[in-house]
Amino acid sequence: MNFSSKLLENAVNEVSQLPGIGKRTALRLVLHLLKQPASQTHQLSASLNNLVNDIKLCKKCHNISDVEICEICANPSRNSEIICVVEDVRDVMAIENTSQFKGLYHVLGGKISPIEGIGPQNLTIDSLIEKVKEGLVKEVIFALSSTIEGDTTNFYIYKQLEKLAVKTSTIARGIAVGDELEYADEVTLGRSIVNRIPFENSL
Amino acid sequence: MNFSSKLLENAVNEVSQLPGIGKRTALRLVLHLLKQPASQTHQLSASLNNLVNDIKLCKKCHNISDVEICEICANPSRNSEIICVVEDVRDVMAIENTSQFKGLYHVLGGKISPIEGIGPQNLTIDSLIEKVKEGLVKEVIFALSSTIEGDTTNFYIYKQLEKLAVKTSTIARGIAVGDELEYADEVTLGRSIVNRIPFENSL
Repeated sequence: MNFSSKLLENAVNEVSQLPGIGKRTALRLVLHLLKQPASQTHQLSASLNNLVNDIKLCKKCHNISDVEICEICANPSRNSEIICVVEDVRDVMAIENTSQFKGLYHVLGGKISPIEGIGPQNLTIDSLIEKVKEGLVKEVIFALSSTIEGDTTNFYIYKQLEKLAVKTSTIARGIAVGDELEYADEVTLGRSIVNRIPFENSL
Repeated sequence: MNFSSKLLENAVNEVSQLPGIGKRTALRLVLHLLKQPASQTHQLSASLNNLVNDIKLCKKCHNISDVEICEICANPSRNSEIICVVEDVRDVMAIENTSQFKGLYHVLGGKISPIEGIGPQNLTIDSLIEKVKEGLVKEVIFALSSTIEGDTTNFYIYKQLEKLAVKTSTIARGIAVGDELEYADEVTLGRSIVNRIPFENSL
């Protein structure tokens, strides 16, 4: 691309470093900003700078937070005996949206992935084990994506927790609510039959 | 969405104001920035702020530029007797990429669109007419998108130029190079037959 302006070129190059945004999309976004009042761009820049400068990770669950102990960990009405292990803040938000979980979270910050160079030492697994060793946690629920990386991470943590007096469980895999059986893949359908539950529990 | 952090929420809200970026995509982009060194976000913000603070429009062609007269208008080897009328900087970049045009540009800054509240007075049409009235321009080429808004804008400018001693032309509409005839729409195919050119000219 031949830009008529260095300023424009710099802005497009920076924006196109974001994941999933190519040069053309970046140019479209930047030209959009140029058509808006400059204050909108200043607000955007300020909010991004404030975020990376001032964001904290909760000292207990490692979730993204404005304060040292996040709202969920600081809430005395939450059950601190159950810990749900998730990958990142998006999973916390998704589970919170269901209103079905009243325990605490532990945010790993990723999944074990040798291809991407992420090992157990890059995640917050040690902190989870320490927490469980204190003896107050009764159950650890694994809620990672059902991928090879997710299963590997689950298994790694499970092996470490095995020797400790704590129950481990994993979220149910099965046919999504509203899905047609005929379009489900065999692995999911197979698992949903093996792990069937008493009908009364589904009411 | 329930955010665990006000800073995160603000950043996501600002990013999701960009066209084509919803809340989920904004969250993904913002979380990506959080995983990168803070300097990357600072550079991104600085380049956007610099752009909106310091960008200029070329005084002659109204294209985006770092200086008062853009590189193309300042280039003495370009033919100032031919002016190509385009919508915005992207069209200038696209035409420059072809290396087929050695004249100057005139950037309208949009198309006449009553639905979006854009009238002729919001565009740089007056400045184009003034330029032509000076008498040095021999030909004006319309290179706007082939849409209702583009055709309306072409016609509006054509009507003003009609009384002046200047040739007007429009870029050719037809079957794109590499396209299969059977998939072309009728209007394009019809026009390509009506506006056929001597075979020698296509070699």
